[in-house]
Amino acid sequence: MEAEEQNMDTGKKVNIGVVGLGYWGPNLVRNFIDVENCRVVMVCDANEARLKPVKKRYPNIELTTKYEDMAASNDVDAIAIATPVISHYPLAKQALENGKHVLIEKPICSNSTEAEDLIKTAKKYQKILMVDHTFLYTGGVRKIKELIDKGEIGQLFYLDSVRINLGLFRPDVNVIWDLASHDISIIHYLFDEPPVSVSAMGRDFNNNNITCLAYITLKYKSGMIAHIHTSWLSPVKIRRIILGGSKKMVIYDDVEPTEKIKIYDSGIEFRQENETSLQPTYRLGDINLPKLDQREALALEANHFIDCILNGKKPLTDGAMGLAVLKILEAADISTREGGREIALNISRQQ
Amino acid sequence: MEAEEQNMDTGKKVNIGVVGLGYWGPNLVRNFIDVENCRVVMVCDANEARLKPVKKRYPNIELTTKYEDMAASNDVDAIAIATPVISHYPLAKQALENGKHVLIEKPICSNSTEAEDLIKTAKKYQKILMVDHTFLYTGGVRKIKELIDKGEIGQLFYLDSVRINLGLFRPDVNVIWDLASHDISIIHYLFDEPPVSVSAMGRDFNNNNITCLAYITLKYKSGMIAHIHTSWLSPVKIRRIILGGSKKMVIYDDVEPTEKIKIYDSGIEFRQENETSLQPTYRLGDINLPKLDQREALALEANHFIDCILNGKKPLTDGAMGLAVLKILEAADISTREGGREIALNISRQQ
Amino acid sequence: MEAEEQNMDTGKKVNIGVVGLGYWGPNLVRNFIDVENCRVVMVCDANEARLKPVKKRYPNIELTTKYEDMAASNDVDAIAIATPVISHYPLAKQALENGKHVLIEKPICSNSTEAEDLIKTAKKYQKILMVDHTFLYTGGVRKIKELIDKGEIGQLFYLDSVRINLGLFRPDVNVIWDLASHDISIIHYLFDEPPVSVSAMGRDFNNNNITCLAYITLKYKSGMIAHIHTSWLSPVKIRRIILGGSKKMVIYDDVEPTEKIKIYDSGIEFRQENETSLQPTYRLGDINLPKLDQREALALEANHFIDCILNGKKPLTDGAMGLAVLKILEAADISTREGGREIALNISRQQ
Amino acid sequence: MEAEEQNMDTGKKVNIGVVGLGYWGPNLVRNFIDVENCRVVMVCDANEARLKPVKKRYPNIELTTKYEDMAASNDVDAIAIATPVISHYPLAKQALENGKHVLIEKPICSNSTEAEDLIKTAKKYQKILMVDHTFLYTGGVRKIKELIDKGEIGQLFYLDSVRINLGLFRPDVNVIWDLASHDISIIHYLFDEPPVSVSAMGRDFNNNNITCLAYITLKYKSGMIAHIHTSWLSPVKIRRIILGGSKKMVIYDDVEPTEKIKIYDSGIEFRQENETSLQPTYRLGDINLPKLDQREALALEANHFIDCILNGKKPLTDGAMGLAVLKILEAADISTREGGREIALNISRQQ
Repeated sequence: MEAEEQNMDTGKKVNIGVVGLGYWGPNLVRNFIDVENCRVVMVCDANEARLKPVKKRYPNIELTTKYEDMAASNDVDAIAIATPVISHYPLAKQALENGKHVLIEKPICSNSTEAEDLIKTAKKYQKILMVDHTFLYTGGVRKIKELIDKGEIGQLFYLDSVRINLGLFRPDVNVIWDLASHDISIIHYLFDEPPVSVSAMGRDFNNNNITCLAYITLKYKSGMIAHIHTSWLSPVKIRRIILGGSKKMVIYDDVEPTEKIKIYDSGIEFRQENETSLQPTYRLGDINLPKLDQREALALEANHFIDCILNGKKPLTDGAMGLAVLKILEAADISTREGGREIALNISRQQ
Repeated sequence: MEAEEQNMDTGKKVNIGVVGLGYWGPNLVRNFIDVENCRVVMVCDANEARLKPVKKRYPNIELTTKYEDMAASNDVDAIAIATPVISHYPLAKQALENGKHVLIEKPICSNSTEAEDLIKTAKKYQKILMVDHTFLYTGGVRKIKELIDKGEIGQLFYLDSVRINLGLFRPDVNVIWDLASHDISIIHYLFDEPPVSVSAMGRDFNNNNITCLAYITLKYKSGMIAHIHTSWLSPVKIRRIILGGSKKMVIYDDVEPTEKIKIYDSGIEFRQENETSLQPTYRLGDINLPKLDQREALALEANHFIDCILNGKKPLTDGAMGLAVLKILEAADISTREGGREIALNISRQQ
Repeated sequence: MEAEEQNMDTGKKVNIGVVGLGYWGPNLVRNFIDVENCRVVMVCDANEARLKPVKKRYPNIELTTKYEDMAASNDVDAIAIATPVISHYPLAKQALENGKHVLIEKPICSNSTEAEDLIKTAKKYQKILMVDHTFLYTGGVRKIKELIDKGEIGQLFYLDSVRINLGLFRPDVNVIWDLASHDISIIHYLFDEPPVSVSAMGRDFNNNNITCLAYITLKYKSGMIAHIHTSWLSPVKIRRIILGGSKKMVIYDDVEPTEKIKIYDSGIEFRQENETSLQPTYRLGDINLPKLDQREALALEANHFIDCILNGKKPLTDGAMGLAVLKILEAADISTREGGREIALNISRQQ
Repeated sequence: MEAEEQNMDTGKKVNIGVVGLGYWGPNLVRNFIDVENCRVVMVCDANEARLKPVKKRYPNIELTTKYEDMAASNDVDAIAIATPVISHYPLAKQALENGKHVLIEKPICSNSTEAEDLIKTAKKYQKILMVDHTFLYTGGVRKIKELIDKGEIGQLFYLDSVRINLGLFRPDVNVIWDLASHDISIIHYLFDEPPVSVSAMGRDFNNNNITCLAYITLKYKSGMIAHIHTSWLSPVKIRRIILGGSKKMVIYDDVEPTEKIKIYDSGIEFRQENETSLQPTYRLGDINLPKLDQREALALEANHFIDCILNGKKPLTDGAMGLAVLKILEAADISTREGGREIALNISRQQ
């Protein structure tokens, strides 16, 4: 990623349209407005009431309730899609076929067949296809990636994530797609190896068939294990990832305003007890809280998208990564329906 | 339980012996010394070095390295066993057969066959058999039990427990037997219904076959789910139980020095969206932190044991409860060996 | 205050101009744009570079580097001033004399003579003069006010505030004027009685004569004491007010994202020890965390300003309150220069 | 200090007596029992009921309600005094004159005349006189001392301590003598220079003339300032010292179970703005939490006392340090009575 680079001012500007003005769309509008070589020229929402506050804030942006207007507009170079998941595929397909670059809110599509088709379509039309896995642009996640890549963590034993709160029940997705998709994208970014299986225990609410609490386990060939606790039913908001390695351990607490990453110089070691046995023991040392890049992740991501368009770069969170995350989500859903059965995965690292 | 009652001073005293002076045994000594109608008359440890500090502190207590001395002593009415799990059965059996009341550190035995035999033996000799599930005597757990019994939580949806730290690797038991046994006893105490199945994902360390990290799921007929994350591999100590109900939610954070219990007047409700659908929604209200009984749990428990002996009462944590916990531990072990397979349980509530 | 009322749509709109686009000004712009009966029509900053981002975000707002343009514009009904303190008086005076309503960032002016003249001027021209003491519009402060007014706290013994961080050293004001002014406005709002004296210990940095750390004590006739620790030299950000009363105690921790207010059912009581002595003792009970209004304070305040203009209401944070705060700030400065000498205050409650 | 050294086993043993079995005395008993070359041979309390639990726990220790018995006993080499402050002087005087070494709970005496006499008496009889300023033996305080001495903090700007809780109102001392005496001893230990003045604002409770809340400021020749907020009227327990230096800043949070010390690589620097002005600015870097010595402070201190007796060493917390602390307490009391007037101090560093 070169999200941190300033876009070179080549004089070229990207005109962007944003479709979907629910919770996330207005954040996209605000962040793209601030990108140097970018203009937000149009927004779209089928619900006219959602266009009104945009009009009051930014009277110059063109408004429409018809997506066809945006997809067909010659004035629009790229489209950011922040609509319910079910509509991601048709909207993105239409945009790509009209020669627009596309950024899609996660998860990429409703199923992997759709995602594979979008990847093929983007390739055919030579357009950027990027998925909005925002967490990969945070200072915290990038710091952990850096520590792993430098070998400071040592051999990885486990990753444990808790991402729970009293939630907005979403009609379009369950809690795995809504919240655990963040963890799955983070895990996929951090680790070199893809998971070989997923199991998930979940429960819905009053038999409504929408999982609102789930425990997900990913297994890896190396023996590493990743576990995600995700829930819309928790009275408190917890966002905490623990990463255990042979050299160091890391805690990433995203609820902390500034001290998000703690690196523990602690680990598990072997002590030769006698001729035949190695006794595991532990070492407890200093704790370090590194200074993090405090810039807003979505701002970095918006810049990265425009940079990819203007300079022909490959997005960090491209269609292939979006597809890998989606395959895990699909398998987790199957596992919850089958009482936690372990589902084998077939994900290549390129994804 | 009537652990809170003062033992009536009937003039009778219980003479107690403590076997096993590792980590927990000295706590038993200290607490039993302070019980009104009780005298600690003898301690035993095969390792003579562990007897030395007892001698310096309490020169009047008789010391021995031979358990037979204690089991045979006419001066000893009851024995508290704080040795490695493997020895619980033979030591307790011998004590009961010599007419001593027995308190055993958790878990009760190495396997349920042993436990069943101890229960039978205690019945035959009409002696008290009690298991040291200390958490059931804490102000926090008793407050949650009270809330559930009063109906303040409403329908129970889930219990989520995290009990992790950078651990003392124990040679005699794995982390499930060491730490999760606390949660299993708490859950068993809190809920009226027994679990119908258990699944557990675990990992050992460097193929040493001792589980040091595990995720355990208990399922219930009512649809309730209980999940335990237990680990010796965490850089931080977390002791947190979240209980989600239809009326209220509770967090029990045992690391907090005083504010251990938070009761959230928050919950999930149904809103009739239209004729055919009920949309779950949530309510976020005040939070209450009740004042808790701050007395040391082990002190209450020691008093309760002496009270049961002197007044013929049934212990709150009797052999049957110890057996129920043990059956779940055994099934969890099988599940981890079989990659997380769901193991059916057959536990009657009396246990 | 009736900040919570929706402004009635009388058809009338207030056209507002914002002068000063440093840290706070852009927040004013953003919030006034969202007020129903208000339009932001002009912004002004002598530094042209600061106008550029406004132009990118809101191309329809008129820009100027000359304040005269704004003060003289017939299109402007009200002016919000967010410039360095030294310029508050001349800018506000000019605005009032041109028939504009005025909102001034705190503190109101550089000295109380200026503030008194502004109050007089506003009265003469019958315009609203309001000071931006934002904290008085937060859910947290309003909840404490409600508790005091209902008598739930009982007799007030002390208020202790800590407001410290590693600070932006400001060239125009010291840390007392910058940070402690928040506490002084909060205290003045909460308590019925005005303070009778102020003492302050401060230290500057390397003899630069700008206080960057201070301890301020306010005394009250009733015996109540208020103490403020304010600093730009703390490695951590703390925003915590403790209020001690005879019936209850309150902690307001503004760094907490949601659980800001804790009400302790704890207090000090008298126990008759013998005929002649009353022994103080304490009672420790439950803790309650009330649900708070989560709306953005500045949004409520912006609405309140427009409401006062349209409906002729008296602002909660009017010129008189701004003057009372300023008198305390002036006396605190004198006290720090004189090594902490107690300075008598003459503030009537109307202020 | 060489508190960490093991006492050399010279065969000699110190027989110690403990007088005063209120809150602190039993802790002294327990810790001295565990010291290698020490025996607790006698305890004394005028209240016979307090002797009973000692008898139950340690039947071999001689009990008395008459201090004369202890002071006169040939079997007693040293006496630890944990009685109300008013009695420190006569009890210690009698002990020294009978040729006993003395350890006195802080503060050393009721007034500095008494303390000076004790110092003289100890010198005359060549006995150890040590004051129980326990905090100076904690891993946290010793780590901060080490950081200062190594120059890692740089120039010291301020120390800010908050030591508050809902308190035990003590009849014999006010909150300054009870709680702030800890901070004063810590500050005196950490800094090379003695304070030149003290000012204190306090309030009593219902005119009972016992200060239960106080703000104390110590000034230093170097410009450094130390401030202590101490209270028995806080609903929460806070034990937090912030130390600000030119190179680093330190937070010592004694309520944290393990992560007590945080070292912030943050500080204040000068940036040359133009020819005539130096603008202070700040640097925000990593945070480090060093591993601390976790041993119980009182155990180290008890060992140190016995080591001083057996090997003729000078105690870290000797009579001179006790006197220096006491002089500051006396001046703080005067200042509170005079409304916060600054009181000059005359303390030589040897004290």
